[in-house]
Amino acid sequence: MTGTISTTLPADDRSEAIKAALVRRHAASGDRLCEMARYAVAAPGKLLRPLMLMAAAEAVGGSADVALPAAVAVEHLHVASLVHDDIIDGDDERRGRPSVQAHYGVAEAIVAGDALLFDLFAAVSESSAPPRVVLAVVSEFARAGVDLCRGQVLESLMTPPAAGRSGSALEEYFGVAENKTGALFRAACRAGALLGGGSAEQAELLGEYGHHTGVAFQMFDDLLPYLASRSGKPDVSDAANLRPTWPVLLAHRTGTAEHRQAVETALSGALDPAETLELLRFAVAGSGALMIARRGAHDRVRLAVARLGELPGAAAANRLAAIAEIAADRDC
Amino acid sequence: MTGTISTTLPADDRSEAIKAALVRRHAASGDRLCEMARYAVAAPGKLLRPLMLMAAAEAVGGSADVALPAAVAVEHLHVASLVHDDIIDGDDERRGRPSVQAHYGVAEAIVAGDALLFDLFAAVSESSAPPRVVLAVVSEFARAGVDLCRGQVLESLMTPPAAGRSGSALEEYFGVAENKTGALFRAACRAGALLGGGSAEQAELLGEYGHHTGVAFQMFDDLLPYLASRSGKPDVSDAANLRPTWPVLLAHRTGTAEHRQAVETALSGALDPAETLELLRFAVAGSGALMIARRGAHDRVRLAVARLGELPGAAAANRLAAIAEIAADRDC
Repeated sequence: MTGTISTTLPADDRSEAIKAALVRRHAASGDRLCEMARYAVAAPGKLLRPLMLMAAAEAVGGSADVALPAAVAVEHLHVASLVHDDIIDGDDERRGRPSVQAHYGVAEAIVAGDALLFDLFAAVSESSAPPRVVLAVVSEFARAGVDLCRGQVLESLMTPPAAGRSGSALEEYFGVAENKTGALFRAACRAGALLGGGSAEQAELLGEYGHHTGVAFQMFDDLLPYLASRSGKPDVSDAANLRPTWPVLLAHRTGTAEHRQAVETALSGALDPAETLELLRFAVAGSGALMIARRGAHDRVRLAVARLGELPGAAAANRLAAIAEIAADRDC
Repeated sequence: MTGTISTTLPADDRSEAIKAALVRRHAASGDRLCEMARYAVAAPGKLLRPLMLMAAAEAVGGSADVALPAAVAVEHLHVASLVHDDIIDGDDERRGRPSVQAHYGVAEAIVAGDALLFDLFAAVSESSAPPRVVLAVVSEFARAGVDLCRGQVLESLMTPPAAGRSGSALEEYFGVAENKTGALFRAACRAGALLGGGSAEQAELLGEYGHHTGVAFQMFDDLLPYLASRSGKPDVSDAANLRPTWPVLLAHRTGTAEHRQAVETALSGALDPAETLELLRFAVAGSGALMIARRGAHDRVRLAVARLGELPGAAAANRLAAIAEIAADRDC
């Protein structure tokens, strides 16, 4: 293992293979579009989705090699969504470097994201699997992409928590998480299963694993700004955008009147981002929501991995279990 | 013919079939993402690309029906690029209505464009043609999409015309037009040919037709702000964005010192959009560039249609010829 994810994953060179394929894809031409695409995909990420896709292929008894083009594609999809997200959220930093929009400007970032998005389907179509299978993967990614967009729209429509409606706000939150994050994790795993020659039942089992892991990932992602020591993604982005994230909604539901008031004031839009985050931190930590939120993410992981033992490729299934653990316990 | 394109096209109901399929695709769910997608695709457009795709399928002896999902897809691709273009150019009007970004805001327009883009691949993958053929169409659209993005980046890198370099500026212009517009017209025709069961040679012939028609379309598009009577697209957009378009470059190359100076002053960025356009109009009309530009677009159309007679479906080939004529002689 090359250290991209964590030393708890078995040592192998899959991360390196994915990274090399990502950069190679945009090295052919020296033009500006290629340069931007390379800039976007070469930033050090965790590569969770492509690693899951390859492990899913192996878990059903297939080879990782046949899944590599689709692994490259799923990372493209993820990166394209980040490039556009950073425009929407006004985030200038991504993965420890200037975001594409900060580095190249908004107009170029819109176009670069679009190009990555188109190119992911070119990458998938280069798979060596039977056309019928590759076409099913195209469909998985296309539908997951639409779901991801739907999740973003649902997120933008979320209303701040108010007295008496914490329950429906939590429901809204999970609707967002399932679309925005769960759908692509699910598609990655289903694609891997299909490319690895798995049955419809195995694809469904792995899709469920991906879905729950994705939701756990999102739950943990929303916890990150409230953990004591961490690095990476700017803390204030969600707070600056007044998003009622999971720990915040939990604090509103489980906290005292003071915590509830803190949440409502923080998300009213009257404070600056740093003050907003400080007030939310007070509510999340003080109400005990942090602990409940963390446990919730772990519960999801348990649900995700529950049936992995039914798959023929035990080593790959173990790797999937390890990825799920990391999804809900990481520092960036 | 339902009047969508022009009364010079033979009467048929293909436009209506495409329009109905476009709206039907986003009618299933009542959510906001569907609403935005429907708003974007339902605006009255000329449907040139999907009509070409269906005619290409018929020109090689195939059925229009099998090509309908891909026809819907190619219009999605076009509309998605317009939705994002209008953000980049700051255009508030599109097809006589508020643009998606003006109507829903920039953030939602980014997401809506992305969703259309994903959904086009979902639409293609629903084709009833053999998987191998459908996968080839996926690849055509994916690569055309990347080319379209490349054309946009090349356009943003174009430098204003200056003394002694009109020639290379014209070369740059055609590089932009071929990528930004020609590539998708080409892909539409190639896709139609493949879905219609055409040979590789027929796909290539139709691809060339699409390529030249697309470039002619772009050449004529750039002429529109300089024609006496017209409607539709806001005149000042290209001028406001200081784009050295084809007639402007021609005016710079063929005009007097006064016309050249007018072009250079107009594109210096020192004037407001209306003044810029007025100065460019003076140069384009006064230099005779308007007539040369118009003739150039017609020459391209002749090149486009030259080999259509070799195709077995004569009626469809005639329809393609009529579409090419319209591409280079329209009022919006």
